[in-house]
Amino acid sequence: MQDALLALTKYWTDRGCIVVQPFNTEVGAGTLNPATVLRVLGPEPWRVAYVEPSVRPDDARYGENPNRLQTHTQFQVILKPDPGNSQELYLGSLEALGIDVRGHDVRFVEDNWASPALGAWGLGWEVWLDGLEITQFTYFQQAGGQTLDPVSVEITYGIERIMMALQGVDHFKKIAYAPGISYGEAFGQSEYEMSRYYLDDADVEANKRLFEEFAVEARRMLDARLPVPAHSFVLKCSHIFNVLDARGAISTTERARAFGRMRGLAREVAALWAERREELGHPLGLAESPALAPAPTSFVDVSAPATLLFEIGTEELPPAEVTRTVDAVRQAVTDKLAATRLTHGDVTVHGTPRRVVVLVDEVSPREPDAERTVRGPRVSAAFDAEGQPTKAVQGFARGQGVDVTALGRVTENDVEFVALVKTDTGRGAVEVLSGLLAEVVAELRAEKNMKWNDPKLSFTRPIRWLLALLGETPVPVSVSTLAADTKTRVHRTANEPVVEVSTADGYLDFLAGHGIDADASVRRQKIVDKANELAASVGGVVEFDGVLDEVTNLVEFATPILGSFEERYLELPGQILTTVMRKHQRYLPVRTADGALLPHFVAVANGSVDADLVRAGNEAVLRARYEDAAFFWRADLKTPLEEMKSGLAKLTFADKLGSMADRAARIAALAGRLAQHVSVDVETLTRAGQLAKFDLGSQMVIELSSLAGVMAREYATRAGETPEVAQALYEMELPRSAGDAMPASAPGAVLALADRFDLLAGLFGIGANPTGSSDPFGLRRAALGAVSILRAFPDLREITLTRALSLAAEGLEVTPEALETAREFAVRRYEQQLLDAGNDHRFVNAVLPLADSPVLADETLAELTKLAGDPDFASLVAALQRVRRIVPADVTASYDASALSESAELALHKAFSSLGERPAGLAAFVAAAGGLTAPINTFFDEVLVMAEDAKVKAARLGLLASIRDYAAPVLDWKEL
Amino acid sequence: MQDALLALTKYWTDRGCIVVQPFNTEVGAGTLNPATVLRVLGPEPWRVAYVEPSVRPDDARYGENPNRLQTHTQFQVILKPDPGNSQELYLGSLEALGIDVRGHDVRFVEDNWASPALGAWGLGWEVWLDGLEITQFTYFQQAGGQTLDPVSVEITYGIERIMMALQGVDHFKKIAYAPGISYGEAFGQSEYEMSRYYLDDADVEANKRLFEEFAVEARRMLDARLPVPAHSFVLKCSHIFNVLDARGAISTTERARAFGRMRGLAREVAALWAERREELGHPLGLAESPALAPAPTSFVDVSAPATLLFEIGTEELPPAEVTRTVDAVRQAVTDKLAATRLTHGDVTVHGTPRRVVVLVDEVSPREPDAERTVRGPRVSAAFDAEGQPTKAVQGFARGQGVDVTALGRVTENDVEFVALVKTDTGRGAVEVLSGLLAEVVAELRAEKNMKWNDPKLSFTRPIRWLLALLGETPVPVSVSTLAADTKTRVHRTANEPVVEVSTADGYLDFLAGHGIDADASVRRQKIVDKANELAASVGGVVEFDGVLDEVTNLVEFATPILGSFEERYLELPGQILTTVMRKHQRYLPVRTADGALLPHFVAVANGSVDADLVRAGNEAVLRARYEDAAFFWRADLKTPLEEMKSGLAKLTFADKLGSMADRAARIAALAGRLAQHVSVDVETLTRAGQLAKFDLGSQMVIELSSLAGVMAREYATRAGETPEVAQALYEMELPRSAGDAMPASAPGAVLALADRFDLLAGLFGIGANPTGSSDPFGLRRAALGAVSILRAFPDLREITLTRALSLAAEGLEVTPEALETAREFAVRRYEQQLLDAGNDHRFVNAVLPLADSPVLADETLAELTKLAGDPDFASLVAALQRVRRIVPADVTASYDASALSESAELALHKAFSSLGERPAGLAAFVAAAGGLTAPINTFFDEVLVMAEDAKVKAARLGLLASIRDYAAPVLDWKEL
Repeated sequence: MQDALLALTKYWTDRGCIVVQPFNTEVGAGTLNPATVLRVLGPEPWRVAYVEPSVRPDDARYGENPNRLQTHTQFQVILKPDPGNSQELYLGSLEALGIDVRGHDVRFVEDNWASPALGAWGLGWEVWLDGLEITQFTYFQQAGGQTLDPVSVEITYGIERIMMALQGVDHFKKIAYAPGISYGEAFGQSEYEMSRYYLDDADVEANKRLFEEFAVEARRMLDARLPVPAHSFVLKCSHIFNVLDARGAISTTERARAFGRMRGLAREVAALWAERREELGHPLGLAESPALAPAPTSFVDVSAPATLLFEIGTEELPPAEVTRTVDAVRQAVTDKLAATRLTHGDVTVHGTPRRVVVLVDEVSPREPDAERTVRGPRVSAAFDAEGQPTKAVQGFARGQGVDVTALGRVTENDVEFVALVKTDTGRGAVEVLSGLLAEVVAELRAEKNMKWNDPKLSFTRPIRWLLALLGETPVPVSVSTLAADTKTRVHRTANEPVVEVSTADGYLDFLAGHGIDADASVRRQKIVDKANELAASVGGVVEFDGVLDEVTNLVEFATPILGSFEERYLELPGQILTTVMRKHQRYLPVRTADGALLPHFVAVANGSVDADLVRAGNEAVLRARYEDAAFFWRADLKTPLEEMKSGLAKLTFADKLGSMADRAARIAALAGRLAQHVSVDVETLTRAGQLAKFDLGSQMVIELSSLAGVMAREYATRAGETPEVAQALYEMELPRSAGDAMPASAPGAVLALADRFDLLAGLFGIGANPTGSSDPFGLRRAALGAVSILRAFPDLREITLTRALSLAAEGLEVTPEALETAREFAVRRYEQQLLDAGNDHRFVNAVLPLADSPVLADETLAELTKLAGDPDFASLVAALQRVRRIVPADVTASYDASALSESAELALHKAFSSLGERPAGLAAFVAAAGGLTAPINTFFDEVLVMAEDAKVKAARLGLLASIRDYAAPVLDWKEL
Repeated sequence: MQDALLALTKYWTDRGCIVVQPFNTEVGAGTLNPATVLRVLGPEPWRVAYVEPSVRPDDARYGENPNRLQTHTQFQVILKPDPGNSQELYLGSLEALGIDVRGHDVRFVEDNWASPALGAWGLGWEVWLDGLEITQFTYFQQAGGQTLDPVSVEITYGIERIMMALQGVDHFKKIAYAPGISYGEAFGQSEYEMSRYYLDDADVEANKRLFEEFAVEARRMLDARLPVPAHSFVLKCSHIFNVLDARGAISTTERARAFGRMRGLAREVAALWAERREELGHPLGLAESPALAPAPTSFVDVSAPATLLFEIGTEELPPAEVTRTVDAVRQAVTDKLAATRLTHGDVTVHGTPRRVVVLVDEVSPREPDAERTVRGPRVSAAFDAEGQPTKAVQGFARGQGVDVTALGRVTENDVEFVALVKTDTGRGAVEVLSGLLAEVVAELRAEKNMKWNDPKLSFTRPIRWLLALLGETPVPVSVSTLAADTKTRVHRTANEPVVEVSTADGYLDFLAGHGIDADASVRRQKIVDKANELAASVGGVVEFDGVLDEVTNLVEFATPILGSFEERYLELPGQILTTVMRKHQRYLPVRTADGALLPHFVAVANGSVDADLVRAGNEAVLRARYEDAAFFWRADLKTPLEEMKSGLAKLTFADKLGSMADRAARIAALAGRLAQHVSVDVETLTRAGQLAKFDLGSQMVIELSSLAGVMAREYATRAGETPEVAQALYEMELPRSAGDAMPASAPGAVLALADRFDLLAGLFGIGANPTGSSDPFGLRRAALGAVSILRAFPDLREITLTRALSLAAEGLEVTPEALETAREFAVRRYEQQLLDAGNDHRFVNAVLPLADSPVLADETLAELTKLAGDPDFASLVAALQRVRRIVPADVTASYDASALSESAELALHKAFSSLGERPAGLAAFVAAAGGLTAPINTFFDEVLVMAEDAKVKAARLGLLASIRDYAAPVLDWKEL
């Protein structure tokens, strides 16, 4: 391993990097070393390489986990400014490490980095070596809240992982660190003991005091205008924070506060550093800006229609952006061509991670000429009485560069004007395309854009080359620093990575000849076909859901490879196995025909690789991940549920709301109170309540928090709990996100509701309302979840928002105003849900007053939607509106029927009186109240409500108010 | 520079070292990294190399000083166990750095390392490259209070210094750190800002709290049996301590307390680490012990007398040990030969830093045989009546292995015994010498001894080879792992560093042929001759005082080289220049005939070197040191004295005793009070008092504390103070050590006394008495100094210890007991001074009662010594003793003369009465009282003191008591 560090150091110093030492205070990552986080600021050039032992107290595992260390070794490289070929340089460094980049599957997989605590972010990739993340590769965009110019390239190698892969060992302790000495022998004791400190023994109160001391010292150093010591104290704060976090001593509110404080300090450090460097006159000089490409000055004429090929070459695009960019470019090219007079055939656009290929058939060689008339002064003003041209027309002619005699006439709206007919000469296709394609490139945008060593362009990843050919004619396209030529870049590992393209025709075949399928549908189909073929060879079928689109756009040429894992891992719950495959590794699971998982997977490599090598690598990665999971699984199975649950007392939840154990207890109690209003299996609910959230104390969930609930069900089942209890524990975490499954059982639903209402009442109670984009406790998700469950469980309709929140508030100190805010917050989420589902906003508004019971509101909305086109319903609505509009709000719903005398009013009275109790539900109401439509309309036609006789008037208004109030609770009629 | 670090890393990893990273908390030296300080403990082997940015807040200079950095770069190597050839490996590493070790003068100069705070020490060298210290080289003996077994070799390179020398630059900022980027460009801002933090801006109270937090956390981790985190907290304590120290916020008492605490923690860490490693089963295995040399089994006979050559080859001995060892070996060989029957000629022993050469002329080829008689039983018991041998004699004969018939007879004291005459066959010379020389080596000891990779031997530095020849015959000598052979080692840089020696004869010439002068007197003379010749070439003479012995024993072959420095440095006070030359560089100053310094020096290199290269190197070293000094000098000259003095307020002195400014004020006030009792130039004293110790605030003295006083005089003179004031300020620091010069002027002496009595009264007052070897405030030196000054200034005799201490106590809270303890402490120092000077202990005891005034005691002692052989004095003493013995202690000195009647008593009364006032001084007293001798003796011969008449008896006793008391104050007669 030490040879690897030396090799990397040598490689990068040979490429102009200076070497610095690891920082002499604990840092969580090489990025935090001032050689990165400060040096990337400002205009000075900087190239550096260094080793950084990175301390992550949270990753402490006593040295027992094969892949997790409290201190792991990063090798960090900063290239400032971006040299434009950093990926190629990086691949060279892998070769310097002895990695055969042709045989292995080395991939740049989208990964966007952000450190809110540092006010820093960047876009880039994790680099995969046969599925193993070995490097973080980032174009640094901001640091300390400052936009970086020039942009730096940050390359962070995870040395232990690379070594484990290169040496083929399955535990970091087995890495050969130096001749005759293993990593474990050299650092095992330290790993154990520092884990003990971070996880068990660090004094929480002392560390809290240290945090404070360091923060104050950082503040003082900023005031003294000394960014270097200030930064070191920010780092010390950060480390102490991480220690406290690993000890489980940081509540969510404390976390937010500490982050805010550190972020503020880091921003000031960055600003001060930049200022100080400027004061010092930028001792390292200024980074040179790359030269802009010269604008084309002449254009070749072509004589016949030809195919246009335009390729935009990029560094690896995020998979979703491949599709999006292809669509956007197609649209842009089509629109822009339409704005010219060039004729052309089909516009086809294809995309891979590294290129967008535009092909336009039959582009005409030039635009036809076009005539247009330029209007001058009125004829009456153009010539004087003698017919001599006036100054006005002379000026016009001069302005147009012609003699007055050349002017003609044109009549508009019966007025005659002097006019000139001009001919716009059509431009040659090359000239037209040159400008048009430059615009396409300049206007490229993605969801999230970045800068690189180009002063003008901005896109999701750097654009590195342009290829433009009209038939065999090069089209000069200049955009910022880029100039199109007639070369393309194929696989970086090809013998000849840059190849000349002679003609636009047959370009897809040309690329295919270089092992690149530009057409995504081709890649996709190859994956499907080959993966199925591979799966069939082991008697299985491939499960493509959720990963196929992504893997299609992660490669330029799909090479599916069948891998296997040991059958013993099948003892693990399938959801663990597939979560790891899909989410972490983008592998396709393989199942038997009846759905059981097989110990196989399909990985999709890029281009031609050494299949055995790549298979072995991917299998090792999966084995490591499964071994991790199996380790937790076995450890957890040995732990009684109550013991796991007792761990919750150590997890701080929030200020004033105690620990996670307190919260679990509140959830159980609240579930019990809710259950008194609905019909539910109390025995199951009670037991599940006792165990609520116990799996948060399991090692598996501590590692893979997305498995909360899943593991609860697994562990509860194995511990002998009833299936109902296990299921309720699983369901109480549902839905985990929008669109996720709902609880299926009533106990599960009640617990899930108790979970969410406890969160809402508790957090709104302490004033931790979400603001702007900040929602650290996930209150939006909780409110949405609660509403969704209530909508899904009509049987629980007695649980209204108001009732649930007020039951949740028992035992908490919550003001009525806070509860109302929480209720309103939930109603807003519901409203949004309805609107997002495409409901008419008038209908949504109409049922919103019923939203305290989302089920009722849903039912009403459904009926309303069904009735929407019904003319009888429309008449009823109109009639009720007439009623509502005429009756003042203060008129109450009672009347003296004896004061009524006219037939129309008596008819209405009779119709209304016959209605009886208002039936529940809109449909029933409409069925019942439909009979009122005609009497109401007759009433208004024939009766003057505002009779002179006050008694009569009062009775008439009272009758109408009674009808109004009878209808009111059904929905908000005025919104219709 | 980064290439150098890579080259060293490569060199040492190629030699089996593992590489670790710098520690991720601030450390003061590479030694503190756990990869050294913990790994050297216990039996596991360990070879490591690493870079360590070492933080020394005290060395912060804002980046302005060319050679001082708050963070400098160490390259650290640990070889455990000592491989036996680490010096050679080290020289190889210099070659790897591109240093021509043949052309340069590379030397191993004694340097013993100790870190009380770590409970660690070792013996070794600083390695000089042309006079520049570039490396610390240590055989680690103890760490954390544990004796190390095996011993580790620690090599610490000072990278910035090496780089400055290799690149020939005169400021660390100018080092080319990497291509195109200088050290200053890379790290200048950090150097400035961290200096600001350490020197000016660190919050003292916050850092004190941090110290406490870290110490407590270290304690807790020890209790949790986790030495690794405990060690990291000890390091954090240590760094915080250094920060506080650099801020001047640590008083001497706080320093002692903090050191004690850190030492205690460090010891526990070490012990716990060792324990834990044992519990873990020593994961790295056990270091192999070197094999013992086989004992010789047979010895060659030689036939003629021959010269013995025995060479003990060592690594570089300390210069003082060269001489001491030569003497010791000569004595040992002589004594041991004397205990054999081998005859021999002269025993000559020579020494260089690397060898002790024993030559014995004319060693006889073997011991002569010798006869001896073994006595058996009495004849009477040996044979029974029949003349048959008894069992007794049979047993004797059997015991001697002879037949009874072989026994003879011997008569002792008229008793006849059976006896056997045995012949002890003389052993061959080779056999005799084999054992004898082995003993010599095994018994070698120095003042301070160490262990290396030898399980049995112990000496000041490792013994690496033995060469033993008797004429041309190899003498097999085996000691522990060493076996003598017939090879010696010459200069390490020789083409053939190990050479065969064929004969003992002419060995000194043989060595001379290899460029080695084994005889120190030869080397010494060569230095004198050549240095004088070189000095003469520039019109000067060499000043050899104080350095010649040392340089003679720092080389095996003396190569004096004349170097020069710029004349402008002569503006600096000569004492600065010569202090640097002698003390720091072991250079010989060159002066004109009338004593003025010339801008030249003589350095003495070892062996044949490239003189121009070595000259240039040494000149550069001196230039750097002088540039440093000149920098301080110029800065100080710009600073008014009062401003320098105001800096003293920031230097904490001791708890309860305020700052150094407070102490200076007390000294001035005490000097004033003392002056009221003696005659002194008050004006001078007052002004000097106002300025007292101001130079402690000068940059020069902060850097070179040994120049305190010297700089005061220089700066005061240049600031226009009178010569007397300047001189007094100089003298108040005298004597700086035993044997140093004394103040010459009364104001200087009074201030010096005030300085020391303030220290004694103050520190004893707060109970900071010296204990054992701990005397952090130098109270022993202070007491000795005070006594010495009093002895040197008879005019100040009115200043007794009692008076001075009680005047010093004014304004301090000091109990009378504490003052008496301080007085007694001073008296004890005085007593020791007298004994060390060779005075008769009886005389010393006799004058000790007078020691409150050392002058008086001195004078008395002088007179006493002079009188010692005088018979009259002896009689007087005897007479006075008779008087003293007979008079009970409670008898007072008065008597009724009228009660006396006998002539002898009347004569005595008359003689005594005629004495009058007792004259001052012993001699005068003896002159006066000498007349009492005869009357006293007559009185005792003729008069019965204990007369029956009580009145008579009282008068006689009263007379004797009067004589006793008259004599008593002169000295303690009973001691004579």
